[in-house]
Amino acid sequence: MGDWQRYLDEHQTRFTEELVDLLRIPSISTDSAYREEVRSAARWTANRLQQAGIEHVQIMETGGHPIVYADWLHAKGRPTVLIYGHFDVQPADPLEQWAHPPFEPHIENHTVYARGASDMKGNVLLPILACEALLRSTGELPINIKFLYEGEEEIGSPSLEPFIKSNSDLLVCDMVVCADGGVGSKEAPVMNVGRRGLTAIEIHVRSANTDLHSGGAGGMAPNAIHALVALLDSMRDSEGRILVEGFYDDVRPITDDDRKELGQYPFHPEVYKENTGIKDFFGEPEYSPVERNTMRPTLEINGIYGGYQGEGTKTVIPREATAKITCRLVPDQTPEKIRQLLIAHIERHAPKAVDVTVETFAGDAKPYVIPRHHEGLLALERALSAVSDKPPVRVRGGGTVPVTALLKDALGVETITLGASLGNDHAHAPNEHYDLQNFARIQRAFCLLFEELAKA
Amino acid sequence: MGDWQRYLDEHQTRFTEELVDLLRIPSISTDSAYREEVRSAARWTANRLQQAGIEHVQIMETGGHPIVYADWLHAKGRPTVLIYGHFDVQPADPLEQWAHPPFEPHIENHTVYARGASDMKGNVLLPILACEALLRSTGELPINIKFLYEGEEEIGSPSLEPFIKSNSDLLVCDMVVCADGGVGSKEAPVMNVGRRGLTAIEIHVRSANTDLHSGGAGGMAPNAIHALVALLDSMRDSEGRILVEGFYDDVRPITDDDRKELGQYPFHPEVYKENTGIKDFFGEPEYSPVERNTMRPTLEINGIYGGYQGEGTKTVIPREATAKITCRLVPDQTPEKIRQLLIAHIERHAPKAVDVTVETFAGDAKPYVIPRHHEGLLALERALSAVSDKPPVRVRGGGTVPVTALLKDALGVETITLGASLGNDHAHAPNEHYDLQNFARIQRAFCLLFEELAKA
Repeated sequence: MGDWQRYLDEHQTRFTEELVDLLRIPSISTDSAYREEVRSAARWTANRLQQAGIEHVQIMETGGHPIVYADWLHAKGRPTVLIYGHFDVQPADPLEQWAHPPFEPHIENHTVYARGASDMKGNVLLPILACEALLRSTGELPINIKFLYEGEEEIGSPSLEPFIKSNSDLLVCDMVVCADGGVGSKEAPVMNVGRRGLTAIEIHVRSANTDLHSGGAGGMAPNAIHALVALLDSMRDSEGRILVEGFYDDVRPITDDDRKELGQYPFHPEVYKENTGIKDFFGEPEYSPVERNTMRPTLEINGIYGGYQGEGTKTVIPREATAKITCRLVPDQTPEKIRQLLIAHIERHAPKAVDVTVETFAGDAKPYVIPRHHEGLLALERALSAVSDKPPVRVRGGGTVPVTALLKDALGVETITLGASLGNDHAHAPNEHYDLQNFARIQRAFCLLFEELAKA
Repeated sequence: MGDWQRYLDEHQTRFTEELVDLLRIPSISTDSAYREEVRSAARWTANRLQQAGIEHVQIMETGGHPIVYADWLHAKGRPTVLIYGHFDVQPADPLEQWAHPPFEPHIENHTVYARGASDMKGNVLLPILACEALLRSTGELPINIKFLYEGEEEIGSPSLEPFIKSNSDLLVCDMVVCADGGVGSKEAPVMNVGRRGLTAIEIHVRSANTDLHSGGAGGMAPNAIHALVALLDSMRDSEGRILVEGFYDDVRPITDDDRKELGQYPFHPEVYKENTGIKDFFGEPEYSPVERNTMRPTLEINGIYGGYQGEGTKTVIPREATAKITCRLVPDQTPEKIRQLLIAHIERHAPKAVDVTVETFAGDAKPYVIPRHHEGLLALERALSAVSDKPPVRVRGGGTVPVTALLKDALGVETITLGASLGNDHAHAPNEHYDLQNFARIQRAFCLLFEELAKA
């Protein structure tokens, strides 16, 4: 470690203040009411890149939220790494479950609480701060670096694919470092070697042209909620197996190598239950919770709505009901095929007395796994080992980062992942938080990774 | 018909203005935010009774919304009739489906559109206007009349039973005329000879102490919505039969006499489908729609809620989900037993990985049927025949008027029903409306009924 370590140490207080600054921007990409706030987060990120000494900083328009690009390309003969991240965040509701307002960051016990703290505004800063430390202390970077920060990750990155395709010359690189990730726990770090894919649908059921009186119409008219409930219940069995015809056809069987890696995964069932408040784990009983979370696909109802929502009772037969569903996908499932299977299942099982329509969304993502012996992965392993007490363990993540499979397809490069999020950060949930000691540690890991990649 | 007919004719415009006035009051009993508005409707009703010449008008307190009592008791040796009604209304949501604001009455084509127009503020006025016409034109009423108007019908009349029990001397009578009803259609009038009972529950499912990320937790954690959906789907089969163990045990079989009466019911399936926009009828295929609606019990989900409700998608595993359910009951089911059966079913079928709690509500109602040869029913038959082209047909209603069974239990009297609502009035739904020509016609029917009852 060189002078960059001293630079990082001396500026941690400022870095935390900058993170708090970024967290104040409610850059919720899924809600069009926050459109300007997403742009404001883009501007903030662009300014911070500039300030760090990164060059060619640009806010680039897409059909949706803008993308921030920047680069530093003076390490002749050295590899070029593309760093990916996003400055948009999930919605903050249910607001009443936050101990502090989600966009007024609260710091307590080396932890910052705010929407986007863990996913992923802290991680947005990590490689910028690492570059700044290297540039200020050594005058250069050990490798060539390009930044690609988007504002649509939480809505499935609909603009990213066309953007990458029409800017493939600008983005050409030897590998990608995805900053949208974490190290599992501080004690026993993990390295992400794969991500699940995603596809989303919304089901609308309509049973009449008006809500009906449950006295006058009860026994005559179909009920949109009952029809929706029956349809949804046809999609999973009582143990969580997905019943959509053909859903598991393309799922890669779990191999002995997979099981060996998974066996090292630092998962503590009792701690997980305590952190989440679940009574018990749930899902296909023929797989372990960690296997189900990383190497098996899921189908989850994310939201449901219909009928009377007020206080007390209302004797109504509702005319409409809606459910939002997402599926996490694993190799070799594809979002296109799964979406078609979902639609076919819905057509087959939709109760005849009602109208059912399916809405699909842009922003599907393919699942992704990096080859076991990729040199970037080995460099990351060395960098993480140097800042940790234990060697990192390889895991496949349950979440989705669409860009990995997308960059593989568009640029032919593999992706490694480095971020400072922890497993119990409450990402996407109330009271999301981020460990500031780990924030500082992974800034070091980024500096070391860049140095390791220079040797590759 | 006497001078009262002329009085009614001369004052129809004023009566309509008065109805519009009453409809402007948003007396929504289920929502505590409208508490004062319910009281305001009580005051309006009390003033109107006074103005009509009814005596001893009182606004009487209960634990909940107030009750209005009034009487006129100078017809010595003649029967005493208790008129029942309610001045509270259902909530108006979904507001966006109303063509005109629900509490700004709109008149078009002899029809007034407003929440409460059909259920039952028009009907509140009918017997008051009939009394006024008789008193102003003849100086007296042919029978003794008591008024009992409550403000909690739409929440199941929780205060009515204790009120009736502690005021049984005040309410003593020979029979009840329930104004909360209608005549089916203008062309072929029907007489209500029975009502279904009601019981309500709300189910709460909780799967974790926070919403979870569907990537990080998907495959590990149970999902409150899936658990609720599975539980709800266990309650009815795909053809609408209720699967709650023991639910049908006390249901009276349909007799030949019942079928004969039901055969005369003026039900037009194609018109009903067009009015409601349903694709098809739905329910136990071994019964006809009219049988199911009047002589079979129901279980309907009235509202469901859980997870993300905003625009687009949110990859969350929701921690909580809720459903509101009501059941319509028929003789000899009782709300107490059905509620216990529902709770037992839920306990038996609740998914083990989640916590399920059941909330119950005050305001259950027993089902009710009047004896076929009751003299009040025969008087009503004559009165309705006199204002109609066709003789009225006897039907059992699908709705619930808790007071009927309640007054039978408390005072030992039977209830006949007379109101001016029509079958397609959209009661409890957006764009509720009420026919003003029928309003005038049933004012006449009330005058005739009072005269017929004087002969009994």
